Amino acid sequence: MKAVILLSGGLDSSTVLYQALADGCECYAISFDYQQRHRRELQSASAIAACAGAVQHQVVEFDLRLWGGSALTDKTIDLPQMRSLDEMSQNIPVTYVPARNTIFLSFALAYAETMMAERVYIGVNALDYSGYPDCRPDYIQAMQEVFRLGTKLGREGQPITIVIPLINLKKTEIIQLGNQLGVPWELTWSCYAGKDIACGVCDSCRLRLAAFAELGLVDPLVYADSPSLLIPLPTPPTPPTLS
Amino acid sequence: MKAVILLSGGLDSSTVLYQALADGCECYAISFDYQQRHRRELQSASAIAACAGAVQHQVVEFDLRLWGGSALTDKTIDLPQMRSLDEMSQNIPVTYVPARNTIFLSFALAYAETMMAERVYIGVNALDYSGYPDCRPDYIQAMQEVFRLGTKLGREGQPITIVIPLINLKKTEIIQLGNQLGVPWELTWSCYAGKDIACGVCDSCRLRLAAFAELGLVDPLVYADSPSLLIPLPTPPTPPTLS
Repeated sequence: MKAVILLSGGLDSSTVLYQALADGCECYAISFDYQQRHRRELQSASAIAACAGAVQHQVVEFDLRLWGGSALTDKTIDLPQMRSLDEMSQNIPVTYVPARNTIFLSFALAYAETMMAERVYIGVNALDYSGYPDCRPDYIQAMQEVFRLGTKLGREGQPITIVIPLINLKKTEIIQLGNQLGVPWELTWSCYAGKDIACGVCDSCRLRLAAFAELGLVDPLVYADSPSLLIPLPTPPTPPTLS
Repeated sequence: MKAVILLSGGLDSSTVLYQALADGCECYAISFDYQQRHRRELQSASAIAACAGAVQHQVVEFDLRLWGGSALTDKTIDLPQMRSLDEMSQNIPVTYVPARNTIFLSFALAYAETMMAERVYIGVNALDYSGYPDCRPDYIQAMQEVFRLGTKLGREGQPITIVIPLINLKKTEIIQLGNQLGVPWELTWSCYAGKDIACGVCDSCRLRLAAFAELGLVDPLVYADSPSLLIPLPTPPTPPTLS
């Protein structure tokens, strides 16, 4: 069974790629160079696609800076830093890119229909959908209807199915799943800051680091600001006494 | 009221732009350079946007040749020529580009949300939807739901509305509407052949020429194969007799 996987190079989409492989899929990865600040993630996407043995990895290029509107594509908008995790989950953040998942899923649909793939995997999850309108289950359901009605395959009764394996998982549960599946975390990329080494302080880095810390794990990715200074390390086991 | 208009430079989308102006909209035109053979249409789109007084005209570039799958983007697939009008309306043609309207509408949505536009106009019509899955009313309805659920504006109760003024019109009726609205036909472009002068023999040219002929009008666009040789000209009025 063929599947198209939306692969940003982040922790979530990398886990999704490994889940698709575990589901028995022949994987066609797709990434997007939309002139985002953090294009460094595309290197990670390529490394992960290769490491996982994806059959193809396509990178679609377009320029979402044309009309701005997001801190991820417009350098005149400041990136948020050091907000509390509560704040991060309550409002639509400035890193929201209008219609981004709709654009991504549209290209994935085109790719999937051309390749005669049966599935499209996307790593939307519960943590995101409190902040982003285009990560929620009802939105995915609406896109599924577009997949059914907007394609030759769908009209012929063989719609391409959108698969969302992470939808109900918290970040810690995604890491646990990825560990089981053998995701190479050191190759993944989450930082929004646009440098060559992950900053460790942007919202995205902090969410990731907090989740590893909560599980008592060390994130193997290298950070500019050492995560050991920012997050509580797990209590080491008490050494056995000699008496 | 702001509106984003999907403008290919063809007869239909040009009529839609003039309809949006007649509806009192401030128009933001959007076109796509997807490495289609007939990129000549982009020159027409720019000329029409300028002529109509659009506030902005954005051209989004991406490459749909990445995965092929259509005669419009893959030069190894022959363009159909000289099929009967009946044949043209019955099957999904090789000029079908998988998920094209879904990609186009997704970018229009991103543009509209950023500009705080209330409407997106698209020129799908009855003649197309017999051939293309992503031109039918039920598909547009599904995209409308994506517009509502996939955006910040939509979630706040102000969804961007998709307007389809041509949906129930035949080609002849579109030309009649465009004539009323003052569409400069000589600036529009319909030919699929990818040359600098319209071929007059591809399906798209022939549909257009047949519609003008049916109305007893002459298409003011210049053709390589003179349309006067291909289509019946209207019977000239009988000159008054002297007796």
